Amino acid sequence: MIIMRLAHRIGSLGTESAFLVSQAARDWAARGNRVFPFHLGDINLPTPANIVAAQQQAIAQGRTGYTAPAGIPELRAALADDVGSRRGLRYGPENVAVQPGGKPVITKFIQALINPGDEVLYPVPGFPIYESQIDYFGAVGVPYRFVESASGFVIDLDDLTARITPRTRALIFNNQQNPLAAESSPSELARLAELALRHDLWVLSDEAYFETRYSGDSHSLVSLPGMQERSIILYTFSKKYAMTGWRLGAAIAPVKIAEIVAQLNVNDESCTSQFTQWAGVEALRGDPSGALVIRQELRRRRDALYDAVVAMPTFRAARPEAAFYLYVNVSDAMRNRGFSDVDAFASAALKATGVAFCTRKHFGRVLPGEPDHYARFAYSGIGVDDIREGMSRLAAWISD
Amino acid sequence: MIIMRLAHRIGSLGTESAFLVSQAARDWAARGNRVFPFHLGDINLPTPANIVAAQQQAIAQGRTGYTAPAGIPELRAALADDVGSRRGLRYGPENVAVQPGGKPVITKFIQALINPGDEVLYPVPGFPIYESQIDYFGAVGVPYRFVESASGFVIDLDDLTARITPRTRALIFNNQQNPLAAESSPSELARLAELALRHDLWVLSDEAYFETRYSGDSHSLVSLPGMQERSIILYTFSKKYAMTGWRLGAAIAPVKIAEIVAQLNVNDESCTSQFTQWAGVEALRGDPSGALVIRQELRRRRDALYDAVVAMPTFRAARPEAAFYLYVNVSDAMRNRGFSDVDAFASAALKATGVAFCTRKHFGRVLPGEPDHYARFAYSGIGVDDIREGMSRLAAWISD
Repeated sequence: MIIMRLAHRIGSLGTESAFLVSQAARDWAARGNRVFPFHLGDINLPTPANIVAAQQQAIAQGRTGYTAPAGIPELRAALADDVGSRRGLRYGPENVAVQPGGKPVITKFIQALINPGDEVLYPVPGFPIYESQIDYFGAVGVPYRFVESASGFVIDLDDLTARITPRTRALIFNNQQNPLAAESSPSELARLAELALRHDLWVLSDEAYFETRYSGDSHSLVSLPGMQERSIILYTFSKKYAMTGWRLGAAIAPVKIAEIVAQLNVNDESCTSQFTQWAGVEALRGDPSGALVIRQELRRRRDALYDAVVAMPTFRAARPEAAFYLYVNVSDAMRNRGFSDVDAFASAALKATGVAFCTRKHFGRVLPGEPDHYARFAYSGIGVDDIREGMSRLAAWISD
Repeated sequence: MIIMRLAHRIGSLGTESAFLVSQAARDWAARGNRVFPFHLGDINLPTPANIVAAQQQAIAQGRTGYTAPAGIPELRAALADDVGSRRGLRYGPENVAVQPGGKPVITKFIQALINPGDEVLYPVPGFPIYESQIDYFGAVGVPYRFVESASGFVIDLDDLTARITPRTRALIFNNQQNPLAAESSPSELARLAELALRHDLWVLSDEAYFETRYSGDSHSLVSLPGMQERSIILYTFSKKYAMTGWRLGAAIAPVKIAEIVAQLNVNDESCTSQFTQWAGVEALRGDPSGALVIRQELRRRRDALYDAVVAMPTFRAARPEAAFYLYVNVSDAMRNRGFSDVDAFASAALKATGVAFCTRKHFGRVLPGEPDHYARFAYSGIGVDDIREGMSRLAAWISD
């Protein structure tokens, strides 16, 4: 019998513990219970028809073979144009390395630029794969935190600044933030850029939700002077076009970095599905109305959820203008129901009401002294009627 | 200006230098020349219609969201049944981690099981990503070699055995071999299994071409006693179903390893395209006639190419019964044309005849003392008429 010795590095590999919430919700539903899925970062809306049609046409034309590792020239050019024009930047196809989703950009950023022992600033709460990949490749994760204000969350910039050392090598930044739905003000962006320049940091700018917004405009840290040459943008088709399960995204980066990312593509997945890349060209160059319909539906859900949450005396949240999450302070609600652990609160809520949601604990290590009594309610995978019904049940249970 | 310091590990990252041949062929064609593409490992045949239809139906049913990291249960079950039954093994869905292609299994095998400094046996000539990923993750690649015989290539088992040390940790094995199209005899398989057992090795069994064959049956090293618990099978839909650009494959492995591979999926690409997974279910469970048509066409090409090659007095090759490559000893042809470098020979052949092909140098480091006067002619991306025309031009040029 072989001794099951895994490689040591696997001991440093993290995961998305939110999958445990999905499993609990599935189990609860399988036992005949109604579940209100506020835990999903997935989208239960169809991909726009013109994008599907472009994919099927590509298959009919025999576009089922490999592509160059960095992607088809047409998609690289379309991404360079679209991403550049929305940010006031000039990119060319040579800046683009197509990926099977936005997520692969995280590991490839770390692999290309970060050595063991390098320190990497990353947001907590934040997308848990940042922390996982920093740890996995032997770097030192330096979490930066947020402060709750009346209008939402802001980065604790003094604290972040104090954490920078001569070993700090990169900043991971996610405007239109998951799970907070926070966005940086112009002055916050300016201070971040100033820090990146002064300390010569690489920047991974996760812009997955850049175009998922309900008013105003998104701003990219990469648009600030001196940032483009040190920044890798994580781009994804997942959110804007309801293409989560298609797996299509890209790294937009300085040419040399884009080339290294493409070389990692050669080693890892070879290339991204060819016909899916052609669908991406249609998404970017074709009729944009499908994405608008998706955003309008998400706005209706945002309004329904926000209205329900602010009507609850024990819930506290700011109204987000971007992404599709509401990050709720549930401290008072937990006190009402006698809970001190937020995951126990979430489990009890699921069993009492069918409402499933993630908590602070699913978004990176909890820092010493950090209050963790927060829950993330996603409204991408649940319609307006179910939002109202679920929150009504939750409110009744909490005030019970 | 940021100093472009890449991570040190990138210095150990290899690539597929065959892309340079593709580039040279494209450049030559762009200048108005006819090119005969014997260099491509891609397939210029359509994916069977029932597989395409299943994918489109999945999209119409809204199957465009994320899946579990290891894949949809239906595809995992279908793969467990199919791969198991063809090898006389029992697998369950829990042994399967779906991948965006077969290639990702290579890096995930290394990441999951191999520590820096571990020695890994791998074939040369062989698929170049083995060597690249061994180097990249700090392991020590120990190449094993083949000996040319009248009936094709056989592993130099005495040499391989002598290279095993206490630090040897894994064997990478590719029956139905690329580029050699070699296959191991039953006694060769038995000796490899005996070595793996005696030295407690992990085995990556790359079975990408297991079902691309023209007579007889394929045999898997994993079918031998004691091997299943120490082996990871690389499975791909690419070759059998002409689905190269779909990106669909799987790791079939002991449960614990499949779980680690799925955890790597969580960190890397999240999951494989959902509707593509449903297409894979149709490929495995539905009408199999499309795959048969593909194989029949490849057989016709194999025959046309083999007949043309053996008619050339300066070319020497055995007739392969599997995969879609002919690995040709071109020593005499090079001597005829006055070449001592095989890549210079290939470049001159392209410009003189339009015939594009890869050489020994594209398949891993050339070993000390190894003759490298070999060329790989792929017949997956070129039809029978062009095979005959291209080889006729090549023959005329060589004997000129």
